Formats: sequence, C-alpha cells, structure tokens
Amino acid sequence: MTVHASHRLLARRLGIDTHSENVVFMRKDCPVCRSEGFASHNRVALAAADRHVIATLYQVESSLLDRDEAGLSDATWLNLGLHAGDHITVRHAPPVSSLSLVRGRIFGHSLEDVALREIISDIVAGRYSPIEISSFITACAAKPLSLNEICGLTGAMVEVGERLIWDKPIVADKHSVGGLPGNRTTPIVVAIATALGLTMPKTSSRAITSPAGTADAMETMAPVILDERKIREVVDREGGCIVWGGAIRLSPADDILIRVERALDIDSHGQMIASVLSKKIAAGATHLVIDMPVGPTAKVRDAETAAILSADLLSVASRFGIQARVVLGDGRQPVGRGIGPALEARDVLAVLKGDKDAPQDLRDRALVLAGAVLELCGQAATGNGKARAAAVLDDGRAWAKFERICAAQGGMRVPPISRYRRDVTAMADGEVSNIDNRRLARLAKLAGAPEDKAAGIELRVRLGDKVSRGDRLFTLHADADGELAYATSYADMNADIIQLAGT
Amino acid sequence: MTVHASHRLLARRLGIDTHSENVVFMRKDCPVCRSEGFASHNRVALAAADRHVIATLYQVESSLLDRDEAGLSDATWLNLGLHAGDHITVRHAPPVSSLSLVRGRIFGHSLEDVALREIISDIVAGRYSPIEISSFITACAAKPLSLNEICGLTGAMVEVGERLIWDKPIVADKHSVGGLPGNRTTPIVVAIATALGLTMPKTSSRAITSPAGTADAMETMAPVILDERKIREVVDREGGCIVWGGAIRLSPADDILIRVERALDIDSHGQMIASVLSKKIAAGATHLVIDMPVGPTAKVRDAETAAILSADLLSVASRFGIQARVVLGDGRQPVGRGIGPALEARDVLAVLKGDKDAPQDLRDRALVLAGAVLELCGQAATGNGKARAAAVLDDGRAWAKFERICAAQGGMRVPPISRYRRDVTAMADGEVSNIDNRRLARLAKLAGAPEDKAAGIELRVRLGDKVSRGDRLFTLHADADGELAYATSYADMNADIIQLAGT
Repeated sequence: MTVHASHRLLARRLGIDTHSENVVFMRKDCPVCRSEGFASHNRVALAAADRHVIATLYQVESSLLDRDEAGLSDATWLNLGLHAGDHITVRHAPPVSSLSLVRGRIFGHSLEDVALREIISDIVAGRYSPIEISSFITACAAKPLSLNEICGLTGAMVEVGERLIWDKPIVADKHSVGGLPGNRTTPIVVAIATALGLTMPKTSSRAITSPAGTADAMETMAPVILDERKIREVVDREGGCIVWGGAIRLSPADDILIRVERALDIDSHGQMIASVLSKKIAAGATHLVIDMPVGPTAKVRDAETAAILSADLLSVASRFGIQARVVLGDGRQPVGRGIGPALEARDVLAVLKGDKDAPQDLRDRALVLAGAVLELCGQAATGNGKARAAAVLDDGRAWAKFERICAAQGGMRVPPISRYRRDVTAMADGEVSNIDNRRLARLAKLAGAPEDKAAGIELRVRLGDKVSRGDRLFTLHADADGELAYATSYADMNADIIQLAGT
Repeated sequence: MTVHASHRLLARRLGIDTHSENVVFMRKDCPVCRSEGFASHNRVALAAADRHVIATLYQVESSLLDRDEAGLSDATWLNLGLHAGDHITVRHAPPVSSLSLVRGRIFGHSLEDVALREIISDIVAGRYSPIEISSFITACAAKPLSLNEICGLTGAMVEVGERLIWDKPIVADKHSVGGLPGNRTTPIVVAIATALGLTMPKTSSRAITSPAGTADAMETMAPVILDERKIREVVDREGGCIVWGGAIRLSPADDILIRVERALDIDSHGQMIASVLSKKIAAGATHLVIDMPVGPTAKVRDAETAAILSADLLSVASRFGIQARVVLGDGRQPVGRGIGPALEARDVLAVLKGDKDAPQDLRDRALVLAGAVLELCGQAATGNGKARAAAVLDDGRAWAKFERICAAQGGMRVPPISRYRRDVTAMADGEVSNIDNRRLARLAKLAGAPEDKAAGIELRVRLGDKVSRGDRLFTLHADADGELAYATSYADMNADIIQLAGT
C-alpha cells in the first residue's frame, strides 16, 4: 500500500508511564485519523526510521496536541528509539495471526509448541493489547494447561529472552513460590552455598504487588543493577551474586504476563510453573531448590495443592534437564521480623553476622534451604546438608563471603533507617492465634514499602506468643508522616490482622 | 480513614476519548501518588462533590500536568459531573468483591443469578478494568454459559438499564444476527408492520466494527437521537419508530461488553443471546423475529450452529415471556447494492418507493421478515404473511407510513452523495463464484464508512452473474481522495474479495 505523506506525524514524548504497553495519542481531527478512519482503542502500527511497534490509540479533542503531532507514552518512545524532532508514520495494525490460536484455545483446542512460540513472540513484540493478554491468561486458567503445554510455554518463554551460559557442570539456584512477607532467605543461602565453592548466580525480582522483592531488599545492602558482563565478573570472582534479573531480560514474556496475572489475581498453576522455570533455565541453572511455604494466607494454601504443584514443577524441570527439589515450609506467618526492603535486610544481616537476637525462624529456614542446595549439588550427604550449612554460617565464612559478594557488586551499603515510627499494641490480653499475611503485606505497602526502602513493618510477635493488653504487636516504619498516618488508620480498622485468642 | 488535604487535586479535562473507560493521569511526584504509593495501572477511586468512580491511573513524568493536578479522560470528567476549577480526591480503589466470582467461574463454579447481577452491576458502575472485563468474557466463552447462566446474565443486563413499558398487548420487534453487509431490512419491516397497525418501537444500534448500523443508515433519512419522551410521542402517533438505542441506555452493560468482545473477536453463543434479548426485553418487546443469515463469511457459518443458536435463543426468550421466531436466510453475499450508511439508505428508499431498479434481494428479504412479524403477531395467517406484507409495500402504504415516521422523528432527509468514486473492474471473464463479506466490510470502512455517511461500496454483481474482463464489480464511494486512494489500493491487493470462476 502507498504511504501517503499525510500519514507522517511529529512524535512527541508525553512522559506517560504505561509500563510495557505502547500507547499513542492523536487528535481526532488529525489528517491520519481522518484518512484512516481511526477510532479510540484502535490498534495501530507506528513506524520510525528503522523500528516499528503496535500501539493502542487514544483520540484527543483538545489543545493537548497539535493536529500534526502524535503523543507517545514512554514505552512507545523508547521502543521506537526516537529523538526530539523525529517523525513517525501511523497505519492500521496488521492482523495478529496468533490471536486465532488464542481463540482456538478458548474454544478447546490445545496449543502445540509452535503455536505457543508464535503467541509468546507476538506478546513480547508488543503485538497483544492488555485485553488480549488477559484473554490468553484466562483461557489458560479456565482450561488448565496440560503438562505438554506447560513445557511448550516454558520453552517459548526461554526462547524470546536472553540466556546465560555458565561453563560449569553444576549451577545452583533457588526459588521461593512467594506470598510470605519477610521470607528473605536468598542472600543467606547464596552466601553459604558459594562459601562452600558452589556456583550460584542468583537473579532475583523486585516487588510487583508485595512490599519487597529480594532485589529490593538486596539493593539496600549493595548495588543490584548489573549488566551481564559485570554479573560474569562477580560470579567468576566470588562464585555467586544476588542481582536484579530485570536488568538482563531473562524472561521478558514473563515480565509482561505476570503484571496482568497479578492485576487479575489469577494464579494459574501452569503459568506459575512456566514463569518460574523459564527464568531458571534462562539463568543457566542445573540444580534448583524450590521453597514452597504452605498456609491459608500464603500463595499455596494447602498440602494437596502443594503436592500437585510440586509434582508438575519437578516433572517440567526434569524435561528441561534441571534437577529440582521442593522444600515445603510453614506458611502461616511471616518469616523474620522485618517486612519491607531495609527491615528485611536488617534481619538478613543479623543472621549472617550471628547476632544473638537474630530472628531464629529466618535462620532456620535459610539453613534448611541451603542444606537442600548442598545435598542436591553433592556438597553434603542426604540428611547432612543443614548441619553443613549451619557450620559455614556459624564460623563466619558465610558472612565473609556475603561481604565479598557485596563488594564485588559495587560496594556494601548500610540499609537506611526510617524517619517515622509508630507502635501498634494489643487491645486485650491473649495468645497470638492467627496472622493474615495478605493484609500485613498491604499494610507495609501503605507505609511506603517498597518505594521507600526504610518503610514497612517490624513484627514483634509470633504465633503462640502470649501478650498482654498494651504490648506491642508490631511497629510501623515510614519515611513520611502522611504515610504513617495512613498506615496507622488502616491498622486501626484492621485490628484483626493479628488475632488474639482469649486467655 | 481520614482524608488528608493532600489527597485533593485540581481536576483538568484532557479531552481524551477512552470510550467508557475511566482514566486518570497524575504526576508521579504529586503528593497523592507519593503518600498512597500509587503506581501506573493502579485502580484508584476518584471522588467529586457527590459522585465517585473507579479509574485506571497512568503516571506522568513531565510538564503535561502540574503536581497539584489530576488529568481526566472525557468519560471520567462526565461521570464525575465536573466543572472547570473543581477538585477531586484520589484514593486506593476498594476491592471489587464480584471479581472473586469471576475467578470462581474461571476455575469452574457456575454463576447464580445473584452473582451475575453483582458482576454486571459492577461492570456498569465502571468498577471493572478492561482486562477484568476481558477475563470475564473469556471465562464465559472457554466454559460456555449454561442456559440458566444465559438467563441470569440476560436478566442482570436488563436490570441495570432503562426499560420501556408500552401499554399494548403486542409490541413487535426484530433483530438481525448480523455480519452481512447491506442487510438493511429494518426500516422496510417497521414501515410495513406499522402501516398495518402493529406497534413496533424499534431501537437500533450504530456500527461498532461494521461499515454501517441501522441507526447510521436511518440517520441519513431522519433524526435518530431521540429521548424517551420524544420516542413515545412518535410511537403514539405512528405506531413505530426507528431510533438509535444508545441514546436511552437500554442495556448499558451490553454497550460495554460488546466493545471488548469485538476487540477480542470472540462471539460467545451465550453472551450473544444475552446481548440480543436484554435489549429487546428492555425495549418492551413481546413478539420478536430474528433474522439469522447463514454463510461461510457471515456471523453464523453453518446450519448446525444456526440450529443450536436458534433453539437457545427461543428457549431464553420464552423464559422472559417473549414469543420469538428465527428466520434463517442466505448469508453468502451482501444484501442489496449499497454498503455504507447513505448507500444502504438509497436501497431502502428504492424498495419502499417501488422503484423499478430497486434491489430485489433486499425487497424479498424484507418481505419475508415482515411476513414473519405479521404472522407472529396475528396480523396474517401462517403462510400468508409475506403476501400481506407485499400488498402493503406495493400499494404505497408502507412508503407513506415511512414518510410519516421520518416526519415524526424530526423531518425526512435526503441521503448524501459521495464526492469521489472509483470503479473496480473484473480482471478476467468469469462467473461470480464467491463474495467475502468480511473483507468487503473492511473495504467499505477504509473508504470512510460509517463516519463519512456517503462513503462505502456500491456492489454491481451478485453470485452467479457472468462478467467480462473490464466489467464493473463494484464502485468505491468516498468523501476524501486520500481515503479513495487507500481503499483502492486495498481493493487492488485483495482482488479475490469477489472471486470469478473461469468460464
């Protein structure tokens, strides 16, 4: 088709953050909208000198834009590699043929490997709108993915991203299924495993809906945004690292899918497996320990679900040549005392340094997981891993190793301390009978976590503790008094986040 | 919770058309985003003096907005009833409890009436984001709605909208399942039925993805945007009307759902039935004729699908006390010659006036449908309806009635004539063996329909016609030469829209 001169518009960066979604704003009366018959919500193809993307169009009837301008969201601007003064052309988006595969899946056809590759590569190329991604995710949850489909999806997700190759026979990794605030065992496990000579190049995520991801907590102790060359340097020198995986595009498909899954609050079993394993395969793992906390307000709610999920995780991992082990754990309450990046980092440091008042539950869980890693990787006999891990932690080798890893990543930091605090106390005497992980996480976010690194919650009680009226249950930490007030009022309205049984 | 002064922002109308979706733009560094910990894509609750809505937040890092401003899409501005200088408050959106029902549906629970009412009323109140609506629609397609669920959905959709009550024992209506360009029988059927004394207050839709809806075509002959009082006046006087249903919110839920369904290109059987019948029930119909064209490029592709769809349509209609009849028809090619609002209106006028060269297929189909209406409503014996309809058309009574209806709606108009035309001719001799309705519709839209009322296609051949190389197949009509050129190049690249078999 001929490109008419009238299809060119001056690109203007509007500074709007739409995550990875490409959005373009155009005047309803601009020559392109008129000649193409565009309407709001149309999917349009934008082309710059040498790149093109598909974007969602919103039409504008105001002086926000001139008639010869196209306003672009940040993602669109960056994806097109534009500079001020550049022009773009705008046309109808070509039909995305893999959408017919998604429709087929909705109406009952299973997806072959090649179909999943086509779908995932279109999603990563930005050819799916958010509602189309939502439809794909919902279809895969409503008619659960078969084991073959999970493998196909995992492989497709690996294929579209970067992949780290390590020249080592054994590359250890760990993953936590999540949903448990404060469960920050990774830095401890990596320190122990690498202190014993294992290779463990750990890429972690930031919080998406939680008050802290491992990368957020680690960032309060050392830089975590490293490029691949720098990661290799650290791992060559120290055997391991704890860095933010998002900086190296290990599974860009997952980064897109997971945002929609979280927004929908759909945890589909098959997609969770593909999400976890695609990142581990891309990171070059050969041996993988999976931490799976089970509890009524954790992600995995009961033993039966845990058993099915574990079996499928191990089965898919083995098809990709990964030796994996699932470690079930108590998911009824947070791990450690801190919830929020710096507060969790303080717990980690206390355990690594062997402080007397270090949270014992975090220490114990980290040792169980490190022990599993050691056993799986042949560094300890079965049943002996935890003791071996404890020895390395107790004699200071793990702490020394952690210091060296931080130094190699760019220099150790001291986690920041919050400016505002407020204790929340027991309204009556009683025994702590229940802790709602989900609302506790929400409360920590209201206090400012993870954006404010020092913000969050310091938990003062654990299940089974006896408390008297007026005893502290937890302390809120914030960096702005507005946030402290907001978190406080939420805490007041949700006094049953920590339930006390009458004594 | 206390409302902090810092949660107030000056509302600014940005003039952005997001359809019914509420969107708000705020500076990432504004006091509200900081204190609430908002991120882009968050769902937020906006409150004005006496109204509130839930909106999707996009964060802005530029001078597009001041730090104390909130930029609103048009829908949001109107839904909040704002005036220049008004302030709004912004907070975290409360959780939408019916979303857990949608998740339950995804994982296999069926939806009771009360659940569907909750979901639909939340959707109409704007509490669902587009990805959440997409998830609901996909879940209802992947695990098809049961007959009970279709009834529940239909009832829920009626409940949230306006409802017309007519003080008549018989109120006739018709509906076309669609997908067939040019199938503009409604004005003819209404004219015939009302000329014989029936009550037929017809509310029609505009095009969403097609080149013309009945309301678009009718608007070239008379005003169609009438409020309820005015509609009653017209119907009291003439027995019927042909107006745009969108002006009176008969099924606001359908207006929202259908946009997402069309964008996903999912035609779920159950949702289609609920969509059609909710509008008819809300319009007060007691007797309903459904036109169902069947053909490989029509919406209903084969006889088996037609049989299942018909049975369910009749079954749900009867549960709501509506007597219905389905009329199957040939859906292999467009009806009449024109495709586009004014071109279709010209066909309608030719049939009503009894012009010698009026398209006989349109006349015949309109008579079959009008006959079915007459029989269903007791105005003709079974088998005699079509003849009775033909008599009323041939003696000029239908034309006279149509003129009176147009006058009552605000005055008859002459459909506009296009400014640019171009013939597309046969590349070889042959017999017309296939016509692709879908690509023909797309071509008409590229030429400017339905926005440009005069634009579209004038079809010159029908299936079975013998043509010689150079004979006209169709004529493109446009109001801008750019659009004509664009449509022409699409036609050139899609020479097989009209297939010729060698002679």
